[in-house]
Amino acid sequence: MTLMYDQLLNIIQDADRISRNETILEQHSKGMTYHTPQVPELVVYPKSKEEASQILTYANEREIPVTPFGVGSSLEGHIIPALGGITVNLSLMNKVLEIRPEDFLVKVQPGVTRSQLNKELKKYGLFFPVDPGADATIGGMVSTNASGTNSVKYGTMKDQVLGLEAVLADGRVVRTGGMAVKSSAGYNLTSLFVGSEGTLGIFTEITLRLQGIPEVTLAGRALFSSIDETGSAAAAMLKSGLDLGKIELVDQATIQAVNAYKNTDYQEVPTLFIEISGSEHTVKKDMELAQEIAIEEGCQLFEFESDSLARAKLWEARHHVAFAIQAANPGKGLLSTDVCVPISELPNAIKETRKLIELHGVKAAIFGHVGDGNYHAVLSIDAENPEHVKKIEEINQQIVAYALEKGGTCTGEHGIGKGKKQFLRLEHGGTVDLMKEIKMTLDPKGILNPGKIF
Amino acid sequence: MTLMYDQLLNIIQDADRISRNETILEQHSKGMTYHTPQVPELVVYPKSKEEASQILTYANEREIPVTPFGVGSSLEGHIIPALGGITVNLSLMNKVLEIRPEDFLVKVQPGVTRSQLNKELKKYGLFFPVDPGADATIGGMVSTNASGTNSVKYGTMKDQVLGLEAVLADGRVVRTGGMAVKSSAGYNLTSLFVGSEGTLGIFTEITLRLQGIPEVTLAGRALFSSIDETGSAAAAMLKSGLDLGKIELVDQATIQAVNAYKNTDYQEVPTLFIEISGSEHTVKKDMELAQEIAIEEGCQLFEFESDSLARAKLWEARHHVAFAIQAANPGKGLLSTDVCVPISELPNAIKETRKLIELHGVKAAIFGHVGDGNYHAVLSIDAENPEHVKKIEEINQQIVAYALEKGGTCTGEHGIGKGKKQFLRLEHGGTVDLMKEIKMTLDPKGILNPGKIF
Ligand SMILES: Cc1cc2nc3c(=O)[nH]c(=O)nc-3n(C[C@H](O)[C@H](O)[C@H](O)COP(=O)(O)OP(=O)(O)OC[C@H]3O[C@@H](n4cnc5c(N)ncnc54)[C@H](O)[C@@H]3O)c2cc1C
Ligand SMILES: Cc1cc2nc3c(=O)[nH]c(=O)nc-3n(C[C@H](O)[C@H](O)[C@H](O)COP(=O)(O)OP(=O)(O)OC[C@H]3O[C@@H](n4cnc5c(N)ncnc54)[C@H](O)[C@@H]3O)c2cc1C
Repeated sequence: MTLMYDQLLNIIQDADRISRNETILEQHSKGMTYHTPQVPELVVYPKSKEEASQILTYANEREIPVTPFGVGSSLEGHIIPALGGITVNLSLMNKVLEIRPEDFLVKVQPGVTRSQLNKELKKYGLFFPVDPGADATIGGMVSTNASGTNSVKYGTMKDQVLGLEAVLADGRVVRTGGMAVKSSAGYNLTSLFVGSEGTLGIFTEITLRLQGIPEVTLAGRALFSSIDETGSAAAAMLKSGLDLGKIELVDQATIQAVNAYKNTDYQEVPTLFIEISGSEHTVKKDMELAQEIAIEEGCQLFEFESDSLARAKLWEARHHVAFAIQAANPGKGLLSTDVCVPISELPNAIKETRKLIELHGVKAAIFGHVGDGNYHAVLSIDAENPEHVKKIEEINQQIVAYALEKGGTCTGEHGIGKGKKQFLRLEHGGTVDLMKEIKMTLDPKGILNPGKIF
Repeated sequence: MTLMYDQLLNIIQDADRISRNETILEQHSKGMTYHTPQVPELVVYPKSKEEASQILTYANEREIPVTPFGVGSSLEGHIIPALGGITVNLSLMNKVLEIRPEDFLVKVQPGVTRSQLNKELKKYGLFFPVDPGADATIGGMVSTNASGTNSVKYGTMKDQVLGLEAVLADGRVVRTGGMAVKSSAGYNLTSLFVGSEGTLGIFTEITLRLQGIPEVTLAGRALFSSIDETGSAAAAMLKSGLDLGKIELVDQATIQAVNAYKNTDYQEVPTLFIEISGSEHTVKKDMELAQEIAIEEGCQLFEFESDSLARAKLWEARHHVAFAIQAANPGKGLLSTDVCVPISELPNAIKETRKLIELHGVKAAIFGHVGDGNYHAVLSIDAENPEHVKKIEEINQQIVAYALEKGGTCTGEHGIGKGKKQFLRLEHGGTVDLMKEIKMTLDPKGILNPGKIF
């Protein structure tokens, strides 16, 4: 190990950017989920693609495992160095390299976070629409094909990435895509890298599409008396062809957790949070249509606001969800399901999930990006209690089995990581072998993030 | 060859679906472009994935080249069987398998054409937005990552394909993606297959996203006195954030060809054809904004219509472009450039292309999907005259070199095929080797559409 340290120091030439400090190793051993932590042997912080390339060349020659790391907010144990080795933390590569406002384009280094990016874009009247709940890095978001509340309108990471620079396992640097909004020049390697979870290469530069900040934004909140009605109302709004900016479902248990966490008194009923944005003359009409549909489906109360403070207030409960759930389960590991189904299957899927959870007598918060047919059941896991672990895993399996039966996916946005490996073959059958063959082609020694996806 | 025929007959069990007829072979030897034709040894028409799989298993064992074929409308010699062998014509696999209106989804066989699909979708108030000028098959459109006039609003094929069934070179059948609108489950093989030009597998089933037919559609036409103004007006409209449904540029030479072909008297000036669609209360306001911008940029005349007949009339000149150009060059092969650049580079790129063409004293029509930064210069080639061929190729090279220098691509939508092979490495450098490695992994004997892309 001292040898490895010395050799990496020789590459990086800066002892501040290689660490064997225990606290640092610990920070790179786990996320906020239930997966068993594991420490890397050391953490290195490259500042350029050249350094990243030299690190990988070195690791590949010696067959040392390498785990790329953004801010570690992924939810399936993605960044746990399953076989030890080197963790490559990209947080120092955090420059916004080039903004091209006329082309609605930006080039960034992978360690740029989404809030950092949006701060820099604001003065151009532009924003980057993908918004996972955590302030993740763009590199991490590319790697998990992340999405968020805006994806119903703007799509997921795969729809935003026009090009990449990636360092392959053997240290080779490749560039994919470009700056044109479309291309049919050869295989689409950009999309192959998006969602590859650090197993095919380390991204060192990313070209993204941007959006103009809409003229007007309205936020709305619709309260229902049952989760069935809430799901049906969401499906009906989508079917109507309304240009929804966001549509988020939050169930009763989740609102309860928020009230407990924030000492608020939101009505503890299933709620749809809605946002509609666009030009002055459309958004109000569209929000009224959303209201009509909600009321037809049984909505008890529908409010909407345009002023940015009032909007934030209206959505406040939704914004606190993640931390409220964490706070409600102190010291416990969390497991978040992440199924995504065709829209018409959504109301029943949510109903079945709620039933299943009650049947097993456990607690869970259900919420999600229902505009994409994607929702999460967040369950706390008592990792010390094998029976409890088994029960939770069974619930997880049944939720996934239901979604797959309806043509859905086991993961809409979080990725496979360590946690969902068992579901990949259930979902994709023999096609997984083809994925493995591609992995073998790009990383024959299997050094990049081993133990993930497969 | 008799042996091959007998063995395929043994697989297909239907002599009507295997052909060695000279006219049939001839039809499968070329498209409408200048590329040198070549006949296959025979053409086979499978009706199921099982047959497709057996054909490929057989061909792979004997290392016989296989060229998939839709309707042969591709423009870079894609379907020319460069090494002979078997052409697999998918036109009999033309069933729309399942329409899910509530999910905005459809499953089709690859031989379904886009007009056939839209006819079937109409009664559900739905349509499939990708619309290349020819009535291509969905399988062919997936293979070239086709796009069209609607792509500025709805994206290209890669944005529509949710899942695929593909038969690999060795006969294995794989299924990628699914019916959820998003997924992070393993590598995105769907996007790897989109744009693979028949070199990675034969698609036997395709799941596509659909769109609701908009409430109201307005068509507009803006006349300019110079190509510079026309390009600048297009760029300005895009920059304004207008939700354009279509925006097509057609230059003076192209309108002249249309007038000659149709005996019409359209004003022979560079023209922007525009379409805006959406709800009643938005489209008119948006079209007025488009008009304002056009006039600021020097537009001489701006008309728009909402009635469907009047709309068709307004766009008529645009619709005749392809055939007018063919008619203007009887017996000549055509070469169409297909560069795509970042929007801010578009006005200058078109200007430079026009200059280049005049400098070389040749004729060319320029038109394109400028909303994506994509335009074509169509040049006729006198294949018998080596000097003429050389001159046209030089122009082509210079147009591509200019686009690449500006961060663009050599092909926005037509693909590489035979015709643009020389440009792939110019554009993607060493990354082409990675594409080749993937090709080798999926098709180690290189039987699938050899001589294309690489
Ligand atoms: C409270 C909370 C809410 C969340 N909400 C959402 C949500 O709404 N939607 C959603 O999609 N996700 C959500 N997530 C999950 C998480 O934010 C995403 O998975 C995010 O994309 C991870 O980014 P990161 O920078 O934290 O990456 P990390 O967790 O550090 O890494 C994620 C993966 O990417 C790889 N990686 C990181 N950087 C690179 C690089 N430069 N090159 C190659 N590989 C790299 C890692 O090896 C790992 O496999 C949430 C998480 C939390 C904690
Ligand atoms: C007048 C005219 C206008 C055009 N306008 C446009 C335009 O606006 N935008 C645009 O993108 N293109 C345009 N094109 C080009 C052409 O229409 C597209 O390339 C189209 O996608 C080809 O479809 P096809 O069915 O004709 O495929 P083919 O030409 O038969 O095949 C194209 C490629 O796909 C492969 N292939 C076909 N079917 C399958 C399958 N089932 N599985 C695997 N591989 C398969 C073939 O091997 C070949 O490599 C135009 C062409 C013409 C003639």
